[in-house]
Amino acid sequence: MSQPQFKKIVVFGVGLIGGSFALALREADVVGEVVGFGRSGATLQQAMQLGIINRIGSDLAVELGDADLVLLATPVGQMADLMVRIAPHLGALTLVTDGGSTKSDVVEYARAHLGAHLARFVPAHPIAGAEQSGAAAARTDLYQGKKVVLTPLPENAPDAVARVRQAWELCGAAVSELTPQQHDAVFAAVSHLPHLLSYALVHDLAQRENRDLLLSFAASGFRDFTRIAASSPEMWRDICIANRDALLDELARYMEELGVLYEALAEADAGKLEEIFSLARSIRANWTPQ
Amino acid sequence: MSQPQFKKIVVFGVGLIGGSFALALREADVVGEVVGFGRSGATLQQAMQLGIINRIGSDLAVELGDADLVLLATPVGQMADLMVRIAPHLGALTLVTDGGSTKSDVVEYARAHLGAHLARFVPAHPIAGAEQSGAAAARTDLYQGKKVVLTPLPENAPDAVARVRQAWELCGAAVSELTPQQHDAVFAAVSHLPHLLSYALVHDLAQRENRDLLLSFAASGFRDFTRIAASSPEMWRDICIANRDALLDELARYMEELGVLYEALAEADAGKLEEIFSLARSIRANWTPQ
Repeated sequence: MSQPQFKKIVVFGVGLIGGSFALALREADVVGEVVGFGRSGATLQQAMQLGIINRIGSDLAVELGDADLVLLATPVGQMADLMVRIAPHLGALTLVTDGGSTKSDVVEYARAHLGAHLARFVPAHPIAGAEQSGAAAARTDLYQGKKVVLTPLPENAPDAVARVRQAWELCGAAVSELTPQQHDAVFAAVSHLPHLLSYALVHDLAQRENRDLLLSFAASGFRDFTRIAASSPEMWRDICIANRDALLDELARYMEELGVLYEALAEADAGKLEEIFSLARSIRANWTPQ
Repeated sequence: MSQPQFKKIVVFGVGLIGGSFALALREADVVGEVVGFGRSGATLQQAMQLGIINRIGSDLAVELGDADLVLLATPVGQMADLMVRIAPHLGALTLVTDGGSTKSDVVEYARAHLGAHLARFVPAHPIAGAEQSGAAAARTDLYQGKKVVLTPLPENAPDAVARVRQAWELCGAAVSELTPQQHDAVFAAVSHLPHLLSYALVHDLAQRENRDLLLSFAASGFRDFTRIAASSPEMWRDICIANRDALLDELARYMEELGVLYEALAEADAGKLEEIFSLARSIRANWTPQ
């Protein structure tokens, strides 16, 4: 084994995001040991058995002082409390990053709770499918070729940003940078809103008396449109609340768009419908996920 | 070759729907010859080369009188004119079916234009993906295991319904029956509305200055949600107009649903959001396309 670049990594939350991070860095042979913390003892045991972590942590003071890198991979709703608990124990050189799907709120918690350690907290959002969750869903190659967005802070030490970027790149990710506000506006539009819309469609159908008849005729278009409605309700509740302002803007804008379509349809304005559908089709047909 | 069950089939529109119908029945070895009609000479030539049809038709009077089965697989927008043109030439025993995605409008045209031949016109809607189109997209197995909905009419002769059902079953389809009105209400909810919503999202993003930035961060959730926004604008314009009343009802209902979500989000009502997402998730996770 070559000299590890991260002698000790501590992961809070050893599910899909945290577990895959640990697996990828162990696979890259750049980590000495991985210590896992989490709220579920069973999940931590499972993570041990799956080779995700080397040890289950029990004492924050013991584990954090000499950690090279800490990943916060809990639901965003737990992150403020977690920061309060870890802040007193972080070593002077310990890097911290996270895997939260929203960034303005995480940055706000960090400013409130991490104090001077803000210089070494580099927020991150790995863009990796999240329909599955749990340690069993973690994969060595989850981040391979996927995007990870860093939202560095003005307070960040340059070497902290470089090292955190390196960690995610060692996971196989393509790392880019946005401000936290840019990040949240972008993801409200291309991720959070579609999730809300997909949940809304299924919820609308779910309440009908003839629900089973309707669903029996749903086909591949419905299947793909609603795939994300099978995502974790708790996680998406938290994301929606955390990114509420940007998401409300997007939702209002979308409802206006539907108003335009409603009017065109009510007036049987075939030209208007075709114009809208054609622009959408040309943009969608020329887009491929990166 | 066994005795063909359909000595002569005439297909109007030899693209994905009509071409796949012809290919499947030829593969099942139950058809003597397939004659194709269409507006594009190039498409008809291509259909010949691909083995979809045996001959290109040129004279309706010659081809329709002794046809066992006629499939109308043109866009629904052309179907009224087509019925006017074929009605005088249909043989007394010639069966007619169609492949339109909406049914109330097609039935209305048939009542207006097919006269006494209504007894042998059995409307059908094959539920088969339509992102692709054209003769080159036609496949022998397009209907294999897929649903086909018949919407028989009170005027239909029982043997006509049975024979048309048999034709679609020979294509490998699972055939079920609804009234035209039931059909249109069901598909407004599970197909037409999702298409409209998917087009609306992409159209909304397409108009932004930062469109390229937004799309560069869109991932697999966006990919699946918007897959159907790459569908044919002309076809979906026609479907939306044809099924306007049912679709307006669905759209109004969906906008109300979004209003509820907007309010829950504005009030940061995490419980309400989780309730909506949870019901949607449980329904979606327990559904599989048939």
